[in-house]
Amino acid sequence: MQLGLVGLGRMGGNMRERLRAAGHEVVGFDRDPDLSDVTDLRGLVQRLAAPRAIWVMVPAAVTDATIDDLAGLLDEGDIVIDGGNSRFTDDGPRAERLAERGLGYLDVGVSGGIWGREGGYGLMVGGSEEHVGRLMPIFDALKPASEFGFVHAGPVGAGHYAKMVHNGIEYGLMQAYAEGYELLTKSELVTNVPGVFKSWRDGTVVRSWLLDLLDRALDEDPELAGLRAWADDTGEGRWTVDEAVRLAVPLHVITAALFARFASREDASPALKAVAALRNQFGGHATHKN
Amino acid sequence: MQLGLVGLGRMGGNMRERLRAAGHEVVGFDRDPDLSDVTDLRGLVQRLAAPRAIWVMVPAAVTDATIDDLAGLLDEGDIVIDGGNSRFTDDGPRAERLAERGLGYLDVGVSGGIWGREGGYGLMVGGSEEHVGRLMPIFDALKPASEFGFVHAGPVGAGHYAKMVHNGIEYGLMQAYAEGYELLTKSELVTNVPGVFKSWRDGTVVRSWLLDLLDRALDEDPELAGLRAWADDTGEGRWTVDEAVRLAVPLHVITAALFARFASREDASPALKAVAALRNQFGGHATHKN
Repeated sequence: MQLGLVGLGRMGGNMRERLRAAGHEVVGFDRDPDLSDVTDLRGLVQRLAAPRAIWVMVPAAVTDATIDDLAGLLDEGDIVIDGGNSRFTDDGPRAERLAERGLGYLDVGVSGGIWGREGGYGLMVGGSEEHVGRLMPIFDALKPASEFGFVHAGPVGAGHYAKMVHNGIEYGLMQAYAEGYELLTKSELVTNVPGVFKSWRDGTVVRSWLLDLLDRALDEDPELAGLRAWADDTGEGRWTVDEAVRLAVPLHVITAALFARFASREDASPALKAVAALRNQFGGHATHKN
Repeated sequence: MQLGLVGLGRMGGNMRERLRAAGHEVVGFDRDPDLSDVTDLRGLVQRLAAPRAIWVMVPAAVTDATIDDLAGLLDEGDIVIDGGNSRFTDDGPRAERLAERGLGYLDVGVSGGIWGREGGYGLMVGGSEEHVGRLMPIFDALKPASEFGFVHAGPVGAGHYAKMVHNGIEYGLMQAYAEGYELLTKSELVTNVPGVFKSWRDGTVVRSWLLDLLDRALDEDPELAGLRAWADDTGEGRWTVDEAVRLAVPLHVITAALFARFASREDASPALKAVAALRNQFGGHATHKN
């Protein structure tokens, strides 16, 4: 089928390739003319026959503006799909604005990163049965060939919600492996730490794709000597914890993993300065001066 | 090659099958005569030609007694392998006692549970190069067919150490999925929670063997309605945290996962009673009476 695709960066560009390889007609727009098939959004819309489906794959910060621009160009019956990492709370209001113009909306959490072009993308979709049905040929082409990798998770917002929780879980998984790594590197007994991680890739309970990636990183740099101990975050972990607070769900591990990232970015933690000051106050314990 | 195998329960029995299928001659002893190939340890030792290799696969609580019994029956040059979940601190003293009689010792962390018979067991081995070399035909038969699933992690103790950390990581991984599960079940948006977990099995960053098992459990009981919210532990998580305390390694996630299990087993938490009492004391907040 025909699909318009807005945003041809690392994710969108690979998705265009995967969709075309599956026989779909993809018209892509990107601000970078070297990547783009058309000169602007108007050109994109003109190249597609109604009813259109246009997949938006741009950074969360510009998603609303892009969709509002698109909405002014589309016709009743067209569908907009947001495949970016939007916060699920944006989806409902966005769908309402589009519905006022007779436009449909689907929110899709897309997982798989740079590896998705070959293996397929994990897709979590929110929206109506009717809209999901219309896009199924596209979802089928983007998802992995196996029976897994696609879910219609619920109404509008459910796709991004599921993706948010996916990413929250990801924080916890990464931190668990990372803590095991640190403990092994500090032990006096285990002399082959990268070998231990490599061995775990098959036959063990902890085998996973993230473990495969950690083994890959250790192949390149067995002591991770080239890296600074600094972990960024792009929002989904915070949203997950925000949701847990709203719903009163105890996220011990996911919250701890998020906070460990915050701590990694503190050069001079006021909290730990306060602990040092208090130890000095009541016990005369030595402090370390700046 | 010939191998003596002591303990033919869930793990040992399956290992005997896998080793025999690979062409090895396994003589097994178990207290249960229906499982055992010989009547006692003496009979086991007599059935094997020196230098012998005897793999002990019994509960941690009886491992030392079993190995001491064996040691009195073996000849100089024989090797004892402990494949159970011993604490790594037991390995050094045990190896020394055996060395006094001219006996070798290897400690092997074995992962894979009831699934190992078909797919192979993940093996983490501690001991000397010479002893590991002698047992390699056995390790090769037990491990998965892939290039992964085996590591000589270091000297005596390193095998059980690596297995301990493996299990500590496992606690964190399980808790991360579990917290995501709870958040999804409490959300108003996601109507197909088991479907979300199933979809994650391919194409996503969180795909793993544990996720496959959780999907399997949700297939059987989509709301886990048949289960009590009670999580036991068998020691490795505590040992991991003990080690982290000894080495001053911040295990945020693994410790939180362990403590979440402790909390699951408290019927009436004194700590939370204390919080309720204090809220009442300073703010007159209502308490819930027994």
